[in-house]
Amino acid sequence: MAERPTLYTCARSRGFRATWAAEEAGVDIDLRMLPFPPRFLAPEYLELNPLGTVPLLIEGDVRMTESCAIAHYLATKDGYTDLAIAAGEADYAAYCDFTYHADATITFPQTVYMRFVLFEKDKGLQEAGEAYAKWFWKRLVKLEQRLESREFLCADRFTVADICCGYALVLAESVGLDEGVPENLKAYRERLRARDGFRRAWEREAAGPAAI
Amino acid sequence: MAERPTLYTCARSRGFRATWAAEEAGVDIDLRMLPFPPRFLAPEYLELNPLGTVPLLIEGDVRMTESCAIAHYLATKDGYTDLAIAAGEADYAAYCDFTYHADATITFPQTVYMRFVLFEKDKGLQEAGEAYAKWFWKRLVKLEQRLESREFLCADRFTVADICCGYALVLAESVGLDEGVPENLKAYRERLRARDGFRRAWEREAAGPAAI
Repeated sequence: MAERPTLYTCARSRGFRATWAAEEAGVDIDLRMLPFPPRFLAPEYLELNPLGTVPLLIEGDVRMTESCAIAHYLATKDGYTDLAIAAGEADYAAYCDFTYHADATITFPQTVYMRFVLFEKDKGLQEAGEAYAKWFWKRLVKLEQRLESREFLCADRFTVADICCGYALVLAESVGLDEGVPENLKAYRERLRARDGFRRAWEREAAGPAAI
Repeated sequence: MAERPTLYTCARSRGFRATWAAEEAGVDIDLRMLPFPPRFLAPEYLELNPLGTVPLLIEGDVRMTESCAIAHYLATKDGYTDLAIAAGEADYAAYCDFTYHADATITFPQTVYMRFVLFEKDKGLQEAGEAYAKWFWKRLVKLEQRLESREFLCADRFTVADICCGYALVLAESVGLDEGVPENLKAYRERLRARDGFRRAWEREAAGPAAI
């Protein structure tokens, strides 16, 4: 019998993509919550993940640290579920594109903003953070256009692409970046937040046991 | 008969991942080279890609803008090639993880450095750029450890994971970020650069016709 995967994360961090995907895919994970930022508040975590980042998925010899990769992996590892789109299926290209777009183009600029505007205010680099807030808002145009006439990003159904991109919109609201988020993306975010899988994952992270 | 995909990119930008993957996968693409940065020097490109970023892959109704997604797509769209690793195959999880890791965790900090230290020196935000140079070097630990005892990242063969992560190391050298790159990653980069597919892609971008 396969080992139960262990997921280390911080509540509402980008690791939420993994927690949410596990709920949607029905994968039984052992969820371990860390204080933020773990590399300072739980330094022993560096032995498990030298990057010091969250999330971290451990399953046998598997060690994964990329939230979007983990979400896709959980939706495909025991065979493709409806949460993923396989090669040859309609919207396969869009599915690939949006699952990468979510973190590389959308969430990373959010983290630069968070660093210089929220976490390291004393460094006097707010202008660099604000520049990436604008960058983030401009890069939302791809999601905005895609969702002008769609309920979900790909194949007329909820997939990991929605988990990956939707999380970035949830993060935007929680860190004060909502002013440049288009209305149709706010409505999309509410549709995603209303899902049972989202709610279960959200509550689970809030109640999760300490990791270490 | 399937339409020939068109790839818009700037020479040696992260779009090189797509050019390189096309060569390795034997996918015949119509390569169109843009001046950098295209959103200022070729503003009509914004009609094709409102993000203004490169690369852009067009194939029928498909529009992809993420370099790692395009590389994976080209290696799988007509059926999985040896350049990709399918669900169920050994190192599937690592393959997923490294293809996302390459841009979201490794290349994005490089671009923050490039922006504030190389392109926008007059803004006085070099310190923000330098902070992300350090961030980039620290995040190389995952690649460094993985390649301590391996020639390639996954499954003892060259895959799109090597294209995605290898490009970041090529970029590091060209933008002055090599001082923190471990020796084993420099040796890995040389192995990748010696490949025929790499060389063909490099030369093709240098000789490519203007896009617009």
